[in-house]
Amino acid sequence: MPSQSLFKTSVSLLGGNALFLGKEDIQLGVNETPRDTARVIGGMTEGIFARVGAHEEIEELARYSPVPVVNALSSLWHPTQILADLLTLHEHSHLFAKPDSQADSTLEYKNMQTAVKSRKREKVMSLPELRPLTISYIGDSANVLHDMLVTYPRLGHSLRVATPSKYRAPPEVWKRVEELGCDKGIWWGEDPKEAVKGADVVVTDTWISMGQEAEKAQRLQDFQGYQVTEALCQEGGANPDWRFLHCLPRKQDEVDDEVFYGPRSLVFPEADNRKWTTMAVFDLFFGRWDISTDSSKPKPKSSEEQKS
Amino acid sequence: MPSQSLFKTSVSLLGGNALFLGKEDIQLGVNETPRDTARVIGGMTEGIFARVGAHEEIEELARYSPVPVVNALSSLWHPTQILADLLTLHEHSHLFAKPDSQADSTLEYKNMQTAVKSRKREKVMSLPELRPLTISYIGDSANVLHDMLVTYPRLGHSLRVATPSKYRAPPEVWKRVEELGCDKGIWWGEDPKEAVKGADVVVTDTWISMGQEAEKAQRLQDFQGYQVTEALCQEGGANPDWRFLHCLPRKQDEVDDEVFYGPRSLVFPEADNRKWTTMAVFDLFFGRWDISTDSSKPKPKSSEEQKS
Amino acid sequence: MPSQSLFKTSVSLLGGNALFLGKEDIQLGVNETPRDTARVIGGMTEGIFARVGAHEEIEELARYSPVPVVNALSSLWHPTQILADLLTLHEHSHLFAKPDSQADSTLEYKNMQTAVKSRKREKVMSLPELRPLTISYIGDSANVLHDMLVTYPRLGHSLRVATPSKYRAPPEVWKRVEELGCDKGIWWGEDPKEAVKGADVVVTDTWISMGQEAEKAQRLQDFQGYQVTEALCQEGGANPDWRFLHCLPRKQDEVDDEVFYGPRSLVFPEADNRKWTTMAVFDLFFGRWDISTDSSKPKPKSSEEQKS
Repeated sequence: MPSQSLFKTSVSLLGGNALFLGKEDIQLGVNETPRDTARVIGGMTEGIFARVGAHEEIEELARYSPVPVVNALSSLWHPTQILADLLTLHEHSHLFAKPDSQADSTLEYKNMQTAVKSRKREKVMSLPELRPLTISYIGDSANVLHDMLVTYPRLGHSLRVATPSKYRAPPEVWKRVEELGCDKGIWWGEDPKEAVKGADVVVTDTWISMGQEAEKAQRLQDFQGYQVTEALCQEGGANPDWRFLHCLPRKQDEVDDEVFYGPRSLVFPEADNRKWTTMAVFDLFFGRWDISTDSSKPKPKSSEEQKS
Repeated sequence: MPSQSLFKTSVSLLGGNALFLGKEDIQLGVNETPRDTARVIGGMTEGIFARVGAHEEIEELARYSPVPVVNALSSLWHPTQILADLLTLHEHSHLFAKPDSQADSTLEYKNMQTAVKSRKREKVMSLPELRPLTISYIGDSANVLHDMLVTYPRLGHSLRVATPSKYRAPPEVWKRVEELGCDKGIWWGEDPKEAVKGADVVVTDTWISMGQEAEKAQRLQDFQGYQVTEALCQEGGANPDWRFLHCLPRKQDEVDDEVFYGPRSLVFPEADNRKWTTMAVFDLFFGRWDISTDSSKPKPKSSEEQKS
Repeated sequence: MPSQSLFKTSVSLLGGNALFLGKEDIQLGVNETPRDTARVIGGMTEGIFARVGAHEEIEELARYSPVPVVNALSSLWHPTQILADLLTLHEHSHLFAKPDSQADSTLEYKNMQTAVKSRKREKVMSLPELRPLTISYIGDSANVLHDMLVTYPRLGHSLRVATPSKYRAPPEVWKRVEELGCDKGIWWGEDPKEAVKGADVVVTDTWISMGQEAEKAQRLQDFQGYQVTEALCQEGGANPDWRFLHCLPRKQDEVDDEVFYGPRSLVFPEADNRKWTTMAVFDLFFGRWDISTDSSKPKPKSSEEQKS
């Protein structure tokens, strides 16, 4: 989904003014240092939602910005995508039959509920409960997967990942996975069929991201057999009710039309949810808006209220 | 006129939030299929105003979009331009002397009035009446002309068109002209002088559209003698009070400065009117706004009101 | 600072709708004449804030626009930058010790105060008074300097300028300097050390502007010794309390990190002030907003009020 659409829509619905700066307007490190850019843009805004190339760029923006910086996408991480995925899974929890009666009493699941309830606003609507799922990822070790690795195991879900052996998570990502103790909840191999064993949810992403077109031929060869299809999931022994997620934009290489446009696909609710989860992130971190649960219209807080 | 300006201004004046996606943000069929783009953008908006290349692109957008899609310009059609042209002609109806007393009682003219009155809002301001005109188009058979072909004859106006023989309307356009019975009200030839005979209004458009620069030399030769000038119209026997329309941007090849900037030119009121007619289209099809005739500020309708 | 950010932020804070047209949307003189662009855009807006290349372009826009045109940057002038610089100096007037007691009674200074008071609104907050300063500019004779030349001497400040001999102000700029009698308050030489003698404020700008990359090697050689540093200013005999201004974006060639990020630097307050001074310019010239001193929210004036 074009970042611009997501950003502008989310800000507009919160009653704010979106200031979109594209490649033409701002080139980090080319015409100006990220340090100077962060300071100047930070002097005009309540927060920065930054889609960068190298992950170091967003760390430098955050170091020097006078306002909060949220990662909209970097070479290593894509945190806001996982929020939309999680919301989508919770909204569709009725689709996932409970395989046994113990499932919903696991410790991890309770931890998640506690986390949700600790949000201070009292009238916040609770999300439908979600049993611990088996979530499979088939494809390249890219930013969406990296946030899955550090998120799902902490919420009680198991991850099964298949990538070609030379496409493993970079060391700085895996270090963070281990720090959080998430590695215990992750199976990682090379065989897509093994990866979808027992899968409630199958996830993939494009193997040929923007800027990687040059390696396209090599990648098409390396990812032979990684296309998500009905046949693959049936042969691999996925839950017969398995569902499909993809962050878009999608190419046919990684998933066929039958799955992508079929009844298993949650990709469009997932895309729609990026709007709501991005709004929630802006509300939480940028802090100038108050999404009231009583009236339909958000009202900007005064600076005084914010400080007190 | 830059589509972006028109779009943003029209949405802003209606109290909406414009989400402009340019070439950099969205490339139909390159990074994502039109189908996926239509669905995702449609999930964030009340309507899509799409300027496309090939006309099939807008048909595919419309097929898959969950919200209305309005054609802002395609290879074949340019419907919103004709609305602005019509409004401009009605606003300037006093400039066109009635050649005979029967004119304003033609059946076609009454049909038009009925159409205007069938609009449900009661207090809507009536446009000044316009007698049946002779409207001449000199130049390439392009999208603006195509909408003239299917619009003016139905409102009782006669069309006289001159294009070089190899620049005739494509079959899919002419098929639509015939379906609507408009062909009976159209004279089409190669001689610009014959085309302006009795003309109340003379219209042209650039012969060298964006993307056709390569053929420029050939086109300059083919359109020799097609420049709209005082001399051409006098020799051809236009109504001495003839007026000029052009959708902009304009090059000197198709009309000289004397006409374009002179007292016959309605091109700038025509450009200004695109704002009002585009607002009307958005109000009608996108349906989230209500242009009240009582107060100056438009108010968004609630979803409930819309459904009822 | 990206012009787009400044423009959109200033308009948004005034409650207006910003219509940003970038290089992709509008190419003066390429697809359309400046005359036609001015007229069409002027039909949709309350004012035009134009960043152009050649200064003639903005003069042609102003000639044909039905709404006020403000120069956001041209090859010759950069008036809005100087407003931000002046506001920054006034806000930091406490940093500049008075060298003698006569200073604040000079005629020029009183003239400035009168100018401020002649602004009609009664409750306008007065800026802190500023004694006559010595302001030094080291670098290329570019648009920021040109506006310093025609502004500071009229407000009682002395200017000391050092540029390599072949980088002098163009004749049309110097003509305007002389017309205003500003030349009497300006010292101009080639030696940066001489230029900073007694300097209260040192200003520079990049020597390698966008579009001049080709001449880069030549310019680096010509401006040898022009980098603003602590050593340069100490050797040249600047006021020990000297401060630094730069319009951004900045390169290290013209000023080192010690100065740019150090306690003498006012560059970030200066950048922040562009927002306020641009808002003031829009309020003054575009005239559809009324910045009330009583309530926090600006209210648009009705057309009737404006005319009366």
